[in-house]
Amino acid sequence: MKNIKITLSDSEIPEYYLNISYYLKKYLGRLPDSPLNPGTKQPIKGEDLAVIFPMELIKQEVSLEEKITIPEEVRELYKLYRPTPLIRAYRLEKFLDTPARIYYKYEGTSPTGAHKLNTAIAQAYYNKKEGTKTLATETGAGQWGSALALAANFFEMKLVVFMVRVSFDQKPFRKTVMETYGAEVFASPSEKTEFGKKILKAKPDHPGSLGIAISEALETVVKNKGYKYSLGSVLNHVLLHQTVVGLEAKKQMEKIGEYPDIIIGCCGGGSNFAGLAFPFLVDKLKRKKKTRYIGVEPISCPSLTKGQYRYDFGDTACMTPLLKMKTLGSDFIPSPIHAGGLRYHGMAPLISFLYEEKLMEAVAYEQNPVFQAGVDFARCEGIIPAPESSHAIKAAMDEAIKAREEGKKKVILFNLSGHGLLDLNGYDKFLHNQL
Amino acid sequence: MKNIKITLSDSEIPEYYLNISYYLKKYLGRLPDSPLNPGTKQPIKGEDLAVIFPMELIKQEVSLEEKITIPEEVRELYKLYRPTPLIRAYRLEKFLDTPARIYYKYEGTSPTGAHKLNTAIAQAYYNKKEGTKTLATETGAGQWGSALALAANFFEMKLVVFMVRVSFDQKPFRKTVMETYGAEVFASPSEKTEFGKKILKAKPDHPGSLGIAISEALETVVKNKGYKYSLGSVLNHVLLHQTVVGLEAKKQMEKIGEYPDIIIGCCGGGSNFAGLAFPFLVDKLKRKKKTRYIGVEPISCPSLTKGQYRYDFGDTACMTPLLKMKTLGSDFIPSPIHAGGLRYHGMAPLISFLYEEKLMEAVAYEQNPVFQAGVDFARCEGIIPAPESSHAIKAAMDEAIKAREEGKKKVILFNLSGHGLLDLNGYDKFLHNQL
Repeated sequence: MKNIKITLSDSEIPEYYLNISYYLKKYLGRLPDSPLNPGTKQPIKGEDLAVIFPMELIKQEVSLEEKITIPEEVRELYKLYRPTPLIRAYRLEKFLDTPARIYYKYEGTSPTGAHKLNTAIAQAYYNKKEGTKTLATETGAGQWGSALALAANFFEMKLVVFMVRVSFDQKPFRKTVMETYGAEVFASPSEKTEFGKKILKAKPDHPGSLGIAISEALETVVKNKGYKYSLGSVLNHVLLHQTVVGLEAKKQMEKIGEYPDIIIGCCGGGSNFAGLAFPFLVDKLKRKKKTRYIGVEPISCPSLTKGQYRYDFGDTACMTPLLKMKTLGSDFIPSPIHAGGLRYHGMAPLISFLYEEKLMEAVAYEQNPVFQAGVDFARCEGIIPAPESSHAIKAAMDEAIKAREEGKKKVILFNLSGHGLLDLNGYDKFLHNQL
Repeated sequence: MKNIKITLSDSEIPEYYLNISYYLKKYLGRLPDSPLNPGTKQPIKGEDLAVIFPMELIKQEVSLEEKITIPEEVRELYKLYRPTPLIRAYRLEKFLDTPARIYYKYEGTSPTGAHKLNTAIAQAYYNKKEGTKTLATETGAGQWGSALALAANFFEMKLVVFMVRVSFDQKPFRKTVMETYGAEVFASPSEKTEFGKKILKAKPDHPGSLGIAISEALETVVKNKGYKYSLGSVLNHVLLHQTVVGLEAKKQMEKIGEYPDIIIGCCGGGSNFAGLAFPFLVDKLKRKKKTRYIGVEPISCPSLTKGQYRYDFGDTACMTPLLKMKTLGSDFIPSPIHAGGLRYHGMAPLISFLYEEKLMEAVAYEQNPVFQAGVDFARCEGIIPAPESSHAIKAAMDEAIKAREEGKKKVILFNLSGHGLLDLNGYDKFLHNQL
């Protein structure tokens, strides 16, 4: 059976990030509502964010420029693992007996095993340039913390990570990855912050959540000189950095004369979905293509399918600006599913906006069918996927089955955002019927 | 700081395996001594091995052909992850303040994380063609078992794996990888074979060894119809398959006008070292180059540096042919170091021969300095290496330091045979001073 892997050369790593806001303004005439200062309820000003972010990232957050040049030093580091391959899932197609053509963009070749490094490197770079000494952040499954640990170490900055406690327990080796790169890792809620102490006093065995971990990271930044905060998803500048994924994928598909009818990605904060989707979405906004965009989430944390579209805090202690997004409430504690990277109460404002504008759809799945999809994929394609990415796989498989039932040769593209070699605890439980 | 990653296109995946025996005969005039039938003490005949291996692999084992064509189906599967990158370790050079130029061939991009898949795919292919229904094998660290599980699944064969008990306990998630691909995994010594039962009766808490696990796998093959055995290292045909590594590396170095002064690889059974080294070794045999070849092993399992060069069994139950190799004795039980892939009492006959002929050198290290090298490498280069590969890193670092002391711009090439994301238990202990 033929394998088709479409590669690009190092010189084809994108030279700029693509800013979807430029195209939303130009072709839709509308933009998502601005974040608000919780005190004044007025649109947040750049200087309000200067305590937690470097100025360059604040500029990117509000930019309406079409393209933002990738700094040479960042692009050089991307060369360590980019461009990433685009692969035709022939065996999966055969397994599903579908006329659809299934492609996946594989971000698991990065040293930390997923797409997060694309923004970690950029954010570490801009922080270093502006004199940051220490970064503080949160992490759920540990993927974001691992990526930022690698990047912070590369740029000779310290890193403090608050890791959601239930993930800290389920995936102890993510902590080891972070420590190998030199970071300090604390299970959140922790005794390290006032907010953490408060949570633990009320409920000593609290499983934690991304919302709480974000609060702890922000408190740490606000209380320490030379500290800045770095976030793995949700915000515009993070989604912007991830567009390297879709820019490469678009070029790769062009090389074989393909264009997707359906684009799929799992949605936790929205960055990997956005990264793949936005460069293609431009064509939909220009009314050149009618591609369907599908975000996939866990039923236990259904921000898109069940959340409200309103202003809410990004964290549980209500320290962040108010973000207009699809939200389950900033005090929502998701159940401890193994796809830790998707356990976030909110959703990127840009993704939330697209969903409300009906430019994209969303679907939610239970944990067991998602793990089954992961095992099927591993047996067909050889790569054991991250449980987060398996949500996208499940939706891609369902769309391929629909294509079979309709007899249509649809082209399906999904983001295989990471491998699952650090999530084997979940696979172990699934294979022994303990999920 | 500049990154240099040298890639090849899919069309540059080698079209043949390189057979070092051809060159040993032609340029040295000598070959390693043949394996012997333990009963007759005569050179083993092909048909003696037909119970455990398919004929094509037996032919490859004794072949003196210069090149063996890689079957198209195997080459297509290689495209899933090959060619693998060659990377210049600029940051490591800076860290060591060395004038040496350090390159590493990175095999960790394979779906199972190391070089083993190169031979697993080939062996599974030849077995499938000759009607094998089930493969049985042993695994130490789990890398070989994982790779063969993926390959056996691709070729729709069953797989039974005997995993060295101490590794089974230290690395439970390798078992999960194998089960995800559909394999059955037993901790060895096990109750599944007479030999296993015998070992357990004498010592119920026996930590196991590769020698014992091989015996159990062989017993399983011999007692069951349609079963064949598959081995991850040691034998000629396995080293042959691994030459895709060195053939690519040689091409990659040619592209940048480099040739190594020193080639380094860790040595457990010898396959990853052979894979990288043999295509270059041809030039030394032709007296065109004076490259030094260094095999690296753990002090706790020093087959090359402390073993005897004699005929010995490949397994503990004395079921294999007698192999002329550097050996610590087939009943040697190595201490439970974390580099499980290097815990083998013997060494590939081809590698043993080269060592005795002084065509290569060997060096042995303790576990802690090796883990330190792994951490240093992760912080410099971003990739967390497998503990096995860290032996090669340690030696490469020592050679780079020597180069600094001598003021020489040596070119050092080593095989980064795998990543360490499934070996974090060891890193965790090392980082907390528990090794």
